[in-house]
Amino acid sequence: MSVTYARGFGAAAASAGFKESGRPDLGLLVCDGPGTAAGAFTTNAFPAAPVTLTMSHLVGGRARVVLVNSGQANAGTGDEGLEDASTMASGAAAALGCAEEDVLVCSTGVIGPRVPLGRFRAALPKLAAGLSADGGDAFAEAICTTDTRIKTATADAGQHRVGGCAKGAGMIAPRLATLLAFVTTDAPAPPDVLRRIVNERAIPVWNGLVVDGCQSTNDTVLLLASGAAGGDVDETALGDAVESVMRSLARQVAADAEGATKTIVVQVDGATDPVSARAVGLAVAGSDLVKTAVFGSDPNPGRILQAAGDAAVVVDPSRFRSSIGDIPVIEGGVVLQATDPKRALDGPEVLVAIDLGVGDASATVFGCDLSYDYVRINAEYST
Amino acid sequence: MSVTYARGFGAAAASAGFKESGRPDLGLLVCDGPGTAAGAFTTNAFPAAPVTLTMSHLVGGRARVVLVNSGQANAGTGDEGLEDASTMASGAAAALGCAEEDVLVCSTGVIGPRVPLGRFRAALPKLAAGLSADGGDAFAEAICTTDTRIKTATADAGQHRVGGCAKGAGMIAPRLATLLAFVTTDAPAPPDVLRRIVNERAIPVWNGLVVDGCQSTNDTVLLLASGAAGGDVDETALGDAVESVMRSLARQVAADAEGATKTIVVQVDGATDPVSARAVGLAVAGSDLVKTAVFGSDPNPGRILQAAGDAAVVVDPSRFRSSIGDIPVIEGGVVLQATDPKRALDGPEVLVAIDLGVGDASATVFGCDLSYDYVRINAEYST
Repeated sequence: MSVTYARGFGAAAASAGFKESGRPDLGLLVCDGPGTAAGAFTTNAFPAAPVTLTMSHLVGGRARVVLVNSGQANAGTGDEGLEDASTMASGAAAALGCAEEDVLVCSTGVIGPRVPLGRFRAALPKLAAGLSADGGDAFAEAICTTDTRIKTATADAGQHRVGGCAKGAGMIAPRLATLLAFVTTDAPAPPDVLRRIVNERAIPVWNGLVVDGCQSTNDTVLLLASGAAGGDVDETALGDAVESVMRSLARQVAADAEGATKTIVVQVDGATDPVSARAVGLAVAGSDLVKTAVFGSDPNPGRILQAAGDAAVVVDPSRFRSSIGDIPVIEGGVVLQATDPKRALDGPEVLVAIDLGVGDASATVFGCDLSYDYVRINAEYST
Repeated sequence: MSVTYARGFGAAAASAGFKESGRPDLGLLVCDGPGTAAGAFTTNAFPAAPVTLTMSHLVGGRARVVLVNSGQANAGTGDEGLEDASTMASGAAAALGCAEEDVLVCSTGVIGPRVPLGRFRAALPKLAAGLSADGGDAFAEAICTTDTRIKTATADAGQHRVGGCAKGAGMIAPRLATLLAFVTTDAPAPPDVLRRIVNERAIPVWNGLVVDGCQSTNDTVLLLASGAAGGDVDETALGDAVESVMRSLARQVAADAEGATKTIVVQVDGATDPVSARAVGLAVAGSDLVKTAVFGSDPNPGRILQAAGDAAVVVDPSRFRSSIGDIPVIEGGVVLQATDPKRALDGPEVLVAIDLGVGDASATVFGCDLSYDYVRINAEYST
C-alpha cells in the first residue's frame, strides 16, 4: 500500500522515457487538501538541483505534491538544472491547480545529464489523470533505479495510518543513508510535530544504514501529513509508527542493496552513548573486509575487531565481546580460536552482536555484503 | 636493493612455516652497530601485540634489529600475544647478541591466530646465520602477504643512502595507510632527526594512500639509521630522500593492491590548506563508486562530484573543476556532457585532477580500482 495507505493521498506513475529501459520513471504523490510536510536532506557539498528547490519549498512546512523522476539525478547540472527542477514544479502545479511552492521535486539516477523536459511535459497530463488511492505501489516502483524490488511499509498509530516507500540501491552512506524515502500519514500533524519526528525518529534510522559509504547528492526524506483522518495527534504514537516504517524501509534497502546477497545487522550494546554505539556499528557494517567475508561465508572475526577499532571510539579491549549469530567469536578483545562461526554466516541475514562493556547505550545498524555483482553493476552503470 | 642499499645493514629471510603456502614468511633486518630509529604506528583501538611491544622499545630512539613474520598478525591475541611478541624479541636478541629492547617486532597476516613459536625457534638459527648485505630483496619478499610482488625503493642524499621496502596489499586506510614499511639510511642521524622526518615527511605520504578504507591493527613505519657512512647529516636532503622512497613505496602498494588492475592518482589543487586537499583526494580515491567506474572504464564523472562533495570540506561549486587524464569532465560544478573521458580510463594509471579554485594548497593521493578479484581475494582469505 505504500504512501497511499494513509487516507487523503493519491499516487500515480508513468513511463516517461527517462530510463532507457522503458520502465516506470515518473511518480506523483498528491495530498487531497492542504497538507503539512517536513524533510531531511543530503549534506553533500554538491546537492542536486531538486534538493535545493525542495528545501526552499519546505520552509513554511506545507506541501501538497511530491514529483519524482528516476533516470537522471539532476545533480552536477548547474543553473540549468535548477531551472529544470523549477519547470517541473511549476508544470505539476499547473496540472494540479496548486502553487509551485506546494510541489516538492526529487530526482534520482545518473549524475550529470539534464532531465529531458520534453518527455516530462508529454507524460504529465496522463500522470495527473491517473492519480488514485491505489497508486502507492506504482509510485514506489517508479522511483526505483538499480533496485530489484519495491520497498514499502505501513504502521498504525491509534486511529492514524502511516505508510511509506523508499528506493536504494547504491550510493548509500550513513549520513542520511537513503536516496529517497517518502512517508505519509493521515494524522492532522502540524509542521513542528513533523519536524521533530523527522529529526528525532527518522534521521537516526537512516544514519544507521550503510551500503557503500558513498553519500548521494540527492538524499531526501519527506514526511507528509494530510490530516484526512482527523482526531487528536498522539505525537509519541505517531513517532513510533513513523520510526517503525522508516526502520522497515531501511532494512529493505539493505536487503536489496546493489549486488547484496545478505543483509548484515550489527547490534552494538554496552556503549557510553548512542552516537558511539552507532559509530562502531557503522565501522563494522561499512567495512569492505567484513562485507566480503560475509559474502564468502568466510569466518574471519578478526576483521570485526579491526573494523570496530577503526571507529574512532575509545574502547577497552579487555571488555570487548562479539558474536556472529549465536556463536561467540571475540571475548575480552581476544579472537576465539575454538569457535567456528561459519554456520552463522550462511543465512540471508547475518547478525553481528558487539558488546563494548563500558555503558548502557545501544544502536542497530543495517548493512549488506560486498559481492561480485556490486562490482559488475557499478563498473557498467552509466554505459 | 631494498633495506640493504644503505650501508651497515644485513638482512635475511626464511620459510618458517607460518604460511601454509610454504613461501618465505620470516624476515630479519640487522644494523651492524648500535643504530638509531623512529617509527609511526596504527591508531586502531586494537593494536596488534608487536605494535605495543615495538612502540615501547622505540622510546629511547635506538634499535638494532627488525624481526618480521607474515602469516599471523598477532592481533586480537590478548596477553598471550604480548608474551609471544616478547618471546620473539628475546629469541632474536639472544641469537644476535643484543638486548631485547634493541629488537623491533612486526607481524602481518590473519588477525586472531597466535604465532607458532615452535616454528619460529626452529627457523631462527639459520635465519640469523644467513644475514647478508645482499638480503634486502629476500627480506622484502618475506614480509609480503597477498602482495603479488615486492615493493622496494632507493634514493641518495649526498653521500648517504636511503633504501626501503613495504608490503600491502589490503586493509589499507588513509590513517597511516601501510601494513608495514621499513626504510634505512647509513647517515649518522640522531633519534630526534629521524622522528622529525617520520612525522613531517613520511606520515603525510602514507596518509595519502587508500586501498579499501580499512585501517589495520598492525600498521608500522620504521626508519632506522646505521651511521655507517659517517659524515654530517643534511636533514633536508635526508628528508627529501626518505620522502622519495616512501612515496615510491606508497605508489607501488597502490599498484599492487588486492585485486587492483589500475592505480588511481588524484591530484587536488586550489585548496585552502593541505589537509582539505588531501581529504578531497581521499574521498575520491576511496569511493567504491569511483573505483568500480575506473575498473570498468565507465565514464561516470558525476561520481567524482559526488565523492568530492562527501569530503566534509567546504567547496564553492561554481569554482570546482575536474579532469580525467587530459579530458575536462567537470567545470564550475557542472558535469560536462560534451566530453567523453573513456579513453583516459583505459590505461594502467588513471589521473583524476581536481581544482577547488579557492586557494593554493595541493595534495596527491594514491588509490586503486575495485575489481572482482578484490571481492574474490577477501571472500576467501582466511579459509
